[in-house]
Formats: sequence, structure tokens, C-alpha cells
Amino acid sequence: MADVFIALVHYPVYNKNREVIASALTTIDLHDLARLAAAYDLAGFYVVTPLEDQLRVAQEMVAHWSEGWGAGYNQTRKEAVALVRLAGGLEGAVEDIERTTGKEPLLVGTSAAKGGRRTAFSEMKPFLHGENPLLIIFGTAWGLTEEILDGCHLILEPISGRKNYNHLSVRSAAGIVLDRLLGRS
Amino acid sequence: MADVFIALVHYPVYNKNREVIASALTTIDLHDLARLAAAYDLAGFYVVTPLEDQLRVAQEMVAHWSEGWGAGYNQTRKEAVALVRLAGGLEGAVEDIERTTGKEPLLVGTSAAKGGRRTAFSEMKPFLHGENPLLIIFGTAWGLTEEILDGCHLILEPISGRKNYNHLSVRSAAGIVLDRLLGRS
Repeated sequence: MADVFIALVHYPVYNKNREVIASALTTIDLHDLARLAAAYDLAGFYVVTPLEDQLRVAQEMVAHWSEGWGAGYNQTRKEAVALVRLAGGLEGAVEDIERTTGKEPLLVGTSAAKGGRRTAFSEMKPFLHGENPLLIIFGTAWGLTEEILDGCHLILEPISGRKNYNHLSVRSAAGIVLDRLLGRS
Repeated sequence: MADVFIALVHYPVYNKNREVIASALTTIDLHDLARLAAAYDLAGFYVVTPLEDQLRVAQEMVAHWSEGWGAGYNQTRKEAVALVRLAGGLEGAVEDIERTTGKEPLLVGTSAAKGGRRTAFSEMKPFLHGENPLLIIFGTAWGLTEEILDGCHLILEPISGRKNYNHLSVRSAAGIVLDRLLGRS
């Protein structure tokens, strides 16, 4: 299997009015995605934000659960948080993956919107067994900008349940995406 | 397809020390599970807590997004919150389903623990196409008590990713469970 990384992007993303913003970090997202990363045996989880105070918050959270009081209190949380990496931008995450794996990651975008260039979950198998690591990129707020999606090698098809409603939280959506790709073999 | 309901139980559940507690309501859980209920076309989402102040908080949240300021601000959130029902206990949820559907629901427990009586996701199809509505029950905190699980007709197998780590948030786990049962047909 290829190494799989995820990134949670706080900039650049859209707000409700489709303006490009830097969203605020939500610690519950970090915990939920870190736990998913542990459950699905991912190689790392990048928290991406250019805001220095937000990076500091993330850093404190990581330190609390990996070295501080929380490490003794909750061993499974420590195990999950150990997978968290901080990056000021998506490029930084990509460089880090290149440095640690020696290979260029395949950038896999996610979007709740349908579009021309979408890859079905069923078509992902060759990439999951390919040579290159995968970086699956999730957006916060109203989602990744077109520019980010355009720069991805692949964009996953949106999750469609039984209805034409696709406004899931990133906490639920990331779980479903990882489970569809890696959950049953 | 059978009508599918979900319940998020705040009592009785275990805490870290396996004591039976009533957990505090988390509004982010309500939003995330309501959105999953909308996406997977569920018939309803029961928030179960015996604590009256907590029921009041849930009621205010529902009112805010369904009638108050939030209803105009976010239409998709309104659509999701319309599926939320409040119940003081699991029995109340069951009675409500019996009253509205005229049929007794099949109680489907969930647990992160392996055990003797577990039903594989692949075995669920007959029930999803059966006569009776399904009530899929999720626990908060450290999970549903044995007593609740013993009272369920079925208990779903735990979600296993690629690793022996199954400490997912209920926000992620509920998404994965619903997607496995209803997401791809």
C-alpha cells in the first residue's frame, strides 16, 4: 500500500459568500481527524494554516496530549496526536512528505461539489497501490478554493448519500472518505 | 427501504472508568449527526438525555436553526435540524417511532468493542429492506452500557480501519456506519 497522508486546510478556503479566507482552527477537528489517521494507519495528518497564533494553538494541543498532562490521561489520544504535523501552507506539507518519503505525493482534492474532473472512489485502487504517497486534502469552512483543486492531480467525487444533500462536517466526511478508500479490503 | 432512525444516547453511557454517567450534550455532535441524517435520508435523529437543562439547550439549538435567525442564514442547516427529535430516554424514542410509523423498530446497537454477538455490515441488507424501521443507537463518552446493548436486537461489528485502533469520535463513526449501510447501492 502507498503511504497515505491527509491535510486539513484552513487557507485558502471559501466562506459562505465564496470569499477566500483563512478559517479558524477548531480543536475538535484536529482530534477527530487525528483519530481517523490512527484508525486508518495513515502516515501523517497535516494541519495547514498560515496564521501563526493558530499554529501556536495547534502546537499547544499537540504538546498537551503528547507530552503534557493529557499524555498520561489518555494513551489513545496520544497515539493519534503523534500523527499531527503543522504546516504554514500546502507547499510546506508537500515538501515535508518529499523529505520524509523521498517521493512526490499525489495530491488528491476533495469537494462537496460535482464537477468535470472527478475520480470515483472505485477508481482509486491503482493509486492506493502505487509508488507515490497520497496526500488527501480536506477543506474547512465552505471548502477548498478552485485554485487548490486545480493544482491537485485528482479530485475525488463528492460523497453522495441517499439524497441530494452534501453538507457534511469535515469530521464526518473525512471518516467516510477514508473508510471508502481504506476501510474494507 | 426500511425507515432508518438514529439515536445519540447521553445516558446511560460509560465514562473513562466504566462508571455509568449522563454525558453533557455537545452541540457539534447534534449538528454533525443531523447533517448525516439529512444526507442519508433518515427518518429522524433522536437526541436522548434525561437531563432537563440539556434538553432545553437542544431545544434552543433546534429553534434557532429552524425558526430563529439561523433559519434564514443557513437553509441547509435548517433542513438537517428539522430531523432532530428530543427524548428523555431510549424508550421515549422507541415509543415515538412506534407512534409515527405504526411499527416496532429494530434496535441496532453500536460499540467500538468486539464481542460475542456482533452483526457484520454485510449481513444488514435484509434488515434494511425489511418491514420494520431501524433505530441505530450511538453512545457518547466511552460508549453504550452493556445493559443497553443487551436490549438491542442486533449489535453492529466495530468499525475496523487498517489498524487495531478504534477510538473514533461519534461524529466520524456515525458517518462511517451510515455510509457502510446506506451510502453505496
